[in-house]
Amino acid sequence: MQTLIKYNEMNVLNEKELLFLQSALTLENSYNSTAEIIRWLKERNQKVEVEITRIKFSQMSSWLFDEKSTSLRHTTGKFFKIEGINVETNWGEVESWDQPIINQPEIGFLGILTQVHNGILYFLMQAKIEPGNVNYVQLSPTLQATKSNYTQVHKGNKPMYLEYFLDRENNDILLDQLQSEQGARFLKKRNRNIIIQVKENIPEHEDFRWLTLGQIKQLIQSDNLVNMDTRTVISGIPYGNHAKQTVDFYNVMNHSTALSIQAKMLASELDRETAKHTFDEIIHWFTELKAKYDLDIKSKKLSDVEGWEITENSIRHKKNKYFQVIAVDVMISNREVKSWNQPLIEPAQEGICAFIAKEIKGRYHFLVQAKLESGNFDILELAPTVQCLTGSYDTAKSLNTLPFLNYILTADKEQVIFDTLQSEEGGRFYREQNRSMIILVGDDFSTDVPHNYSWMTLNQLKTFIKFNNYLNIQARSLISAITFIEE
Amino acid sequence: MQTLIKYNEMNVLNEKELLFLQSALTLENSYNSTAEIIRWLKERNQKVEVEITRIKFSQMSSWLFDEKSTSLRHTTGKFFKIEGINVETNWGEVESWDQPIINQPEIGFLGILTQVHNGILYFLMQAKIEPGNVNYVQLSPTLQATKSNYTQVHKGNKPMYLEYFLDRENNDILLDQLQSEQGARFLKKRNRNIIIQVKENIPEHEDFRWLTLGQIKQLIQSDNLVNMDTRTVISGIPYGNHAKQTVDFYNVMNHSTALSIQAKMLASELDRETAKHTFDEIIHWFTELKAKYDLDIKSKKLSDVEGWEITENSIRHKKNKYFQVIAVDVMISNREVKSWNQPLIEPAQEGICAFIAKEIKGRYHFLVQAKLESGNFDILELAPTVQCLTGSYDTAKSLNTLPFLNYILTADKEQVIFDTLQSEEGGRFYREQNRSMIILVGDDFSTDVPHNYSWMTLNQLKTFIKFNNYLNIQARSLISAITFIEE
Repeated sequence: MQTLIKYNEMNVLNEKELLFLQSALTLENSYNSTAEIIRWLKERNQKVEVEITRIKFSQMSSWLFDEKSTSLRHTTGKFFKIEGINVETNWGEVESWDQPIINQPEIGFLGILTQVHNGILYFLMQAKIEPGNVNYVQLSPTLQATKSNYTQVHKGNKPMYLEYFLDRENNDILLDQLQSEQGARFLKKRNRNIIIQVKENIPEHEDFRWLTLGQIKQLIQSDNLVNMDTRTVISGIPYGNHAKQTVDFYNVMNHSTALSIQAKMLASELDRETAKHTFDEIIHWFTELKAKYDLDIKSKKLSDVEGWEITENSIRHKKNKYFQVIAVDVMISNREVKSWNQPLIEPAQEGICAFIAKEIKGRYHFLVQAKLESGNFDILELAPTVQCLTGSYDTAKSLNTLPFLNYILTADKEQVIFDTLQSEEGGRFYREQNRSMIILVGDDFSTDVPHNYSWMTLNQLKTFIKFNNYLNIQARSLISAITFIEE
Repeated sequence: MQTLIKYNEMNVLNEKELLFLQSALTLENSYNSTAEIIRWLKERNQKVEVEITRIKFSQMSSWLFDEKSTSLRHTTGKFFKIEGINVETNWGEVESWDQPIINQPEIGFLGILTQVHNGILYFLMQAKIEPGNVNYVQLSPTLQATKSNYTQVHKGNKPMYLEYFLDRENNDILLDQLQSEQGARFLKKRNRNIIIQVKENIPEHEDFRWLTLGQIKQLIQSDNLVNMDTRTVISGIPYGNHAKQTVDFYNVMNHSTALSIQAKMLASELDRETAKHTFDEIIHWFTELKAKYDLDIKSKKLSDVEGWEITENSIRHKKNKYFQVIAVDVMISNREVKSWNQPLIEPAQEGICAFIAKEIKGRYHFLVQAKLESGNFDILELAPTVQCLTGSYDTAKSLNTLPFLNYILTADKEQVIFDTLQSEEGGRFYREQNRSMIILVGDDFSTDVPHNYSWMTLNQLKTFIKFNNYLNIQARSLISAITFIEE
């Protein structure tokens, strides 16, 4: 903290960046220790009774296959639909395929309220139950709401704290970005990721707790504690954009001898100048790939989707690959009993997402993949070095064909700085957790990479995050896990 | 130039930015004076015989209405199609309408070759004939090519200099961006805007001349000399991104007394720091608008497009509004005779595009409009303060309802720093020229603006241009006209 204040005397951080950076560097919390938060999440989990029962599609009271099985949808037409698409592309080995996909055209809110307490920015986080979560309760943003939620609010149905997101007159917007969801599962879906600083006092509620950003990042180091929505919102947080000289000053102040991994991560995050490729070079690389690859999506009736079949219980790939759409009955009893039914997506296997990072020119660079997925808004998004969610990753075929997969799975223990299971969004995905890794590689790892890969600093990745539809959700999830604090 | 070298001794410009900036500040050309270029364009225009004859759709040999009039297309299915769409949106007064639109899903090249000669970067520009141009020949990029052009090149059909854009091993990429076309006329169309620096000697050709960037910008100050494709490519050129202090130093070096408009424009272009709104604030403003407004496009058979009719000679709005699609026979005789027929879009009236600029915190800020158009790739794009292309602008209704239009049309002469007619792309549009203006306003002009308008410096606009689908083509066209040289 001492260093941070010195740093700020140089006047390079704006107030917002300073608040974020201080919070990211703080683990002490005058409200709740991290241990208390973990205990609280466990307790909420034990108190709640959740019953998830697989049912037949025909048993769903509020969902139906519409006329001629064009789509699976809610009786009101709201929420989301499961539709069919045909995909044509010159990317990869398969030129054309059919698949079911989630269509949810509304832009929803993923929002976090924050407040300054004793000079530190605190984030109001929720212990939220989602039917698909492996452990039911995970740490979630203050608000997750669809446009239907917040424009046509029914009595008693109003999400907590919604009013702070609709009427923001006295509050400051600290972050407000459109970000994509899983491109292989959602058709061009985006959410509005928003962080608001509230000046007035916020009423407390037993499902909510105040955490520092450092604490949230600390919880991400464990399996399945922090939900995907939280991870995407905090991934976009800007900590500033400074000249090399300032960052060097900061490093010297902070660590007179060898820098820790965390200090080096912070330098990669804050230094605007030192990078293997200029920003314009990266834009050129990405433009070339977008001009080269086509992605042509056509709607298809769900019943016509080739290679897939609709059974009583699921919409499934005929060879049991990728994922299946199932129907579940949900009963949650807590203070009140809630029950409903809905479709969920169940993955065929556990996946893996991993970033390789390497020190180049004294700064950590991440090996980023330009990846095409069927539901992408704009052909390609920037993805982790390895992203294998739709096929088994530990097969001989995957190991032989997926670049860098083998390297990651056989990396030395001391190279692995992050290795946890993280959940996909439990409101749509059934017990989907994917292995999430960050691997540090040494000088022996070549900087020459295939044409759809490029090296970028954290600062460059953060710049792309500000703009729509650059980093995909898996890349953002891994970035959210990066901490600047040595424990 | 002296100043520029001093400036560069501070080591703040990278080599690429220095080349661009030097070229933008240079009017002397050891190959051709600007007067010679104008004479050459006129001469090319006089030498060529162009005959454009309106014909009936049924007289077109290579274009047809396909089965049940779904679309108007080329017999090979290539080039582009005229299709029908239905538009639904909560933007503006009209919630739903039908219209014809151009669908050309390929990403084409708009490319300029450059070369350094005596330390100055020169641009290889073409005197190109387009059937729709009011004056036939305009100054065009080195290459305009569709993907069909460059992937399936027929013998004798290869565009000049194409090889430099396909095999770039020995050359440097100076700029490479995806940029949108007219959102009201094209369905999600984008081009790849690219500038390449060639190291080897380039063979000359009588249709091509070397110009400095300063000369190109000088020619844009006249009516219809520089085509839209050139204007969009040069609009994205980065001149650097520097701290306020550096820019102030540059200004003081250059002009010890009052700064000229051009020097102030350069400061607005180079200064990363001084702006009314931070970049994150602008991202928030734009995110909010994108989350608020919906744009839902559905394909429709051309014959079913409501409010429009297909006659023998045109696809036209029943009240003669907006534009009509016509068929023309083109005969161009120069060295060889070429003839073909094609559809063109003819506007119903002349339009207007204008930016209001105002000095705020010592830097010029442009009043930017977030505008929804039916063919936009991502709901909204950043447009000029006034953009009125689809309805008559000098009617009482327009003057009363379009923000800032009246102000612009009644501005004092000394406020108007740019006022010319500029052509839309002559390969698609029939004699479409729009009035293009930049107006400087004083302290009496309020900085309070409607919610879909915001003030941005040139530096901020340039940052947005780097990313896909932010600035629309009309905004980019006006930015291309901004010069940093006092004549």
